[in-house]
Amino acid sequence: MKQSKIFIPTLREVPAEAESVSHKLLLKAGMIKQNASGIYSYLPTAKRVLNKIEQIVREEMERIDGVEVLMPVLQQAELWKESGRWDAYGPELMRMKDRNSREFSLGPTHEEVVTSLVRDELKSYKRLPITLFQIQTKFRDEKRPRFGLLRGREFIMKDAYSFHANEASLDETYNDMYNAYHKIFTRVGLNFRPVLADSGAIGGDHTHEFMALAEIGEDTIVYSDTSDFAANIEKTEVVYTPNHEHTPIKELEKVETPGVHTAQKLADFLNVTVDKIVKSMIVKVEDEYVMILIRGNHEVNDVKLKSYFKTENIEMANENEILNILGAKPGSIGPVHVDKIKIYADNDVQDINNLAVGANEDGYHYLNANVDRDFNVEAYGDFRFILEGESLPNNLGKAKFAEGIEVGQVFKLGTKYSESMNATFLDEQGKARPLIMGCYGVGVSRTLSAVIEQHHDDRGVIWPKSIAPYDVHLIAINPKQEAQLELADQLYDQLRNHFDVLYDDRKERAGVKFNDADLIGLPVRVMVGKQASEGIVEVKRRDNSESQEVHIDDLQDVLNAFYDAVK
Amino acid sequence: MKQSKIFIPTLREVPAEAESVSHKLLLKAGMIKQNASGIYSYLPTAKRVLNKIEQIVREEMERIDGVEVLMPVLQQAELWKESGRWDAYGPELMRMKDRNSREFSLGPTHEEVVTSLVRDELKSYKRLPITLFQIQTKFRDEKRPRFGLLRGREFIMKDAYSFHANEASLDETYNDMYNAYHKIFTRVGLNFRPVLADSGAIGGDHTHEFMALAEIGEDTIVYSDTSDFAANIEKTEVVYTPNHEHTPIKELEKVETPGVHTAQKLADFLNVTVDKIVKSMIVKVEDEYVMILIRGNHEVNDVKLKSYFKTENIEMANENEILNILGAKPGSIGPVHVDKIKIYADNDVQDINNLAVGANEDGYHYLNANVDRDFNVEAYGDFRFILEGESLPNNLGKAKFAEGIEVGQVFKLGTKYSESMNATFLDEQGKARPLIMGCYGVGVSRTLSAVIEQHHDDRGVIWPKSIAPYDVHLIAINPKQEAQLELADQLYDQLRNHFDVLYDDRKERAGVKFNDADLIGLPVRVMVGKQASEGIVEVKRRDNSESQEVHIDDLQDVLNAFYDAVK
Repeated sequence: MKQSKIFIPTLREVPAEAESVSHKLLLKAGMIKQNASGIYSYLPTAKRVLNKIEQIVREEMERIDGVEVLMPVLQQAELWKESGRWDAYGPELMRMKDRNSREFSLGPTHEEVVTSLVRDELKSYKRLPITLFQIQTKFRDEKRPRFGLLRGREFIMKDAYSFHANEASLDETYNDMYNAYHKIFTRVGLNFRPVLADSGAIGGDHTHEFMALAEIGEDTIVYSDTSDFAANIEKTEVVYTPNHEHTPIKELEKVETPGVHTAQKLADFLNVTVDKIVKSMIVKVEDEYVMILIRGNHEVNDVKLKSYFKTENIEMANENEILNILGAKPGSIGPVHVDKIKIYADNDVQDINNLAVGANEDGYHYLNANVDRDFNVEAYGDFRFILEGESLPNNLGKAKFAEGIEVGQVFKLGTKYSESMNATFLDEQGKARPLIMGCYGVGVSRTLSAVIEQHHDDRGVIWPKSIAPYDVHLIAINPKQEAQLELADQLYDQLRNHFDVLYDDRKERAGVKFNDADLIGLPVRVMVGKQASEGIVEVKRRDNSESQEVHIDDLQDVLNAFYDAVK
Repeated sequence: MKQSKIFIPTLREVPAEAESVSHKLLLKAGMIKQNASGIYSYLPTAKRVLNKIEQIVREEMERIDGVEVLMPVLQQAELWKESGRWDAYGPELMRMKDRNSREFSLGPTHEEVVTSLVRDELKSYKRLPITLFQIQTKFRDEKRPRFGLLRGREFIMKDAYSFHANEASLDETYNDMYNAYHKIFTRVGLNFRPVLADSGAIGGDHTHEFMALAEIGEDTIVYSDTSDFAANIEKTEVVYTPNHEHTPIKELEKVETPGVHTAQKLADFLNVTVDKIVKSMIVKVEDEYVMILIRGNHEVNDVKLKSYFKTENIEMANENEILNILGAKPGSIGPVHVDKIKIYADNDVQDINNLAVGANEDGYHYLNANVDRDFNVEAYGDFRFILEGESLPNNLGKAKFAEGIEVGQVFKLGTKYSESMNATFLDEQGKARPLIMGCYGVGVSRTLSAVIEQHHDDRGVIWPKSIAPYDVHLIAINPKQEAQLELADQLYDQLRNHFDVLYDDRKERAGVKFNDADLIGLPVRVMVGKQASEGIVEVKRRDNSESQEVHIDDLQDVLNAFYDAVK
């Protein structure tokens, strides 16, 4: 492809809003353009990479007998009501009404649709197992879209669903998928790690995430260097070992705390460490508000709350809601004398007494608040993220952290959807039983971003060969020079027989061309410059900048060698 | 692919709701399944055909320097307001709000998005021309979805947009596209005809539709057998040659017409031909209701109304609206003494006097209604479809009709979007001018249906080789017989090196297998039956049922010959 005919609007300046390396480079290299928050157009080079990733995914799915389908974006609300997720999914589910006021969602995932698709067809064990997959644009109305394609509202997924007559068959396909995912992420050039994970809104209880290691790491991976434990921090259980304080119970005292709205400020104000403070927060669980108590050095873990309360529909209350319930702003609330809503506390809150908490009056806190005397706790539970260095469950060592981007996930769904949606088959004894299901996702547009997070330098992207938008970047350094243009045109025709070639035929300054070539990041470059009249060009690798001047008679051999040497 | 592992839920009975051959066969052959009205899942065989059609489209687009992108489904309302289409598009535009109440459409087409994409980038004539294309799921909330994939609400399109510095450049790309479309529809095996067409909601004034000829014909093509005139009937101008009646004007008379609600019934009741009757209808033009008069033997043409009133937002009023305005039901309305709304009449209405029209009272009509005396006509215009045999414009002969399915359209858009959305470039003189645009669509899922409309028999689909889901159908007639299963397994491994093979390894009766094979319609079949032990199998063409028994030593040659002979 001639660069004059393609659309690669590279930028000189890093856009201020870009928060991650991949987001910056995707914009700077002219690969994406934002249309709305979390919604992007994929420009030509990005689209070529996506096509290659999709093809790798398709090949690996077909290799394990996955069969491609395409289910609709628009999903009837009725289906989601059958599974119970219409209400449970919360505001991330994009919803709309058609001209007849029928309700639809824009599919974020397709368990309901695929179950409805097969439930009238896979009526006998003889037709099992079967695996359907699709590659499709999905929708999720993220509260805070960010990092470019890493957390967008419209994104590309491969999702697959398998159906089985028994657990052994599910285990087999789960393993096939696990191995296929290994191949996929290896082929696209990612450094990744599979970890135990939370099953979230999908349901089911056995699942691994495939995490691409990256500094940006939307997710924290918890691992052990003394065992093979590896899990998403969201899923990592905190083992509670009671360790009660034995300080005497003191009298409740209300103190003025002007300007103190955070745990750290309160700790400073009281001259104690922050782990002696208890944070209070209000969470809306479906339609009910509850208060969560947690120690000042801990952070609340949404996923654990969702799991504890058995719903996906959990959101932090906003300032207005909190004002309405407690009459104070978020930084001044606490449990004392609160009986309008239930109070739940993280396990570790039990260990301390004489708590410092908000007084439900702006600018005031209570000291020496104590459970049972001053407030009631409905229940204690594991509501928080583990800290680095804490003990892992089952004596598997101490927690170490790494940052990762979730690029794939494999789930054993079990019968959650087949039971609620009445998808049954007849087993060998002629007995109706619910289909046993698995589901398996690859974030295709996320994978593109994750590859850039791992493969770049300060000049731009460095594509792995397997998914580079083109193989070779042919550059006519000064196409106004007849000899250069002529030789470059000739090489373009010649090299195209062996490689996908991007040919920079633009009448731009050499500096602009080199900058763009570095940004775009094709594996190997052929530069036609001043020595064109002698038939000499320069070949250069993008990854390590190794280069060689070569006569065009030897070009094909040298280029092959350069290309083969690149990963 | 082994048929036991794929998902092809063929049906024995033709579903009652299927109205066209392709709809029936798509359902019967287990290629699609309806999710909601006008919304379907593409099952494995259909998805393979779609992938092949998409690849042909992609190749032909790239051959004319089209560059692939992927723009979002979710389009901000702001963009549509810039172009003026947010209000103009009407209820076919699917709309939704995100969690922050921002309005979006689900893209039915991408003129606004693509214009916003390039307007900050293509600032100089040096970067023109450029052609961007995408293959994507689109959305249109059809009032009456029907014919399966032919008029769905969620469908797959290839849409392309070109940008130019001058008309000559647009002409060149338009011609390239026109030729590329010729190649695409030829390669997929369609019998088609390009015709002049209406530009509809897109804007612009020069456009051709590519029509696949088919009995179902959603569209009527008007052509001449004495000239090369060919146009969509929607677009075919009716030349009005005055031919006034000279019967004397009679007195207005109100008559009781019990049960008479149609033009034909009224004609019968009055014992006149239907062309002497005038039909009245109420149309909502944006927010204003108007009455349209048209002769009883003519049909009103929506596209002409939209063009006349210069808006896309035109709908027939429903019964309640008509009752509210005129106090009578649709079959009893007429223009006499109506002054609440404006009245427009088709040109031919001028030719007759003493009209029989509804009396705006259920069960009554007026006789001898006459313009000016009994009602006023705001204006006359060409509001109807041409009839077969009428004169074509410019003395190009008499109208003949054929039925067709629109599978592609090429438009010269001009500067409609670049002007309203301020997308300008600097020309060679450094002067800012609006980009000149073209846009070009292929209905990918429609093409799949159109191919089936043309390529089938009463037993099922007969795929053209270029887009068949698999090349060869290998059938183990009775896999319970060891020799048959063994040979079929062996041939499956062997033939897969040369062909895409669907291998029917199912333990089903032979009749079921043959029926399914006919329905699925792969070009060539290899049947392994009773003579398996002697190494003899049968090869058969799907299109003409030609068959041959062949020893497996000669199978590859015979199969190649059979396959090569098929179109």
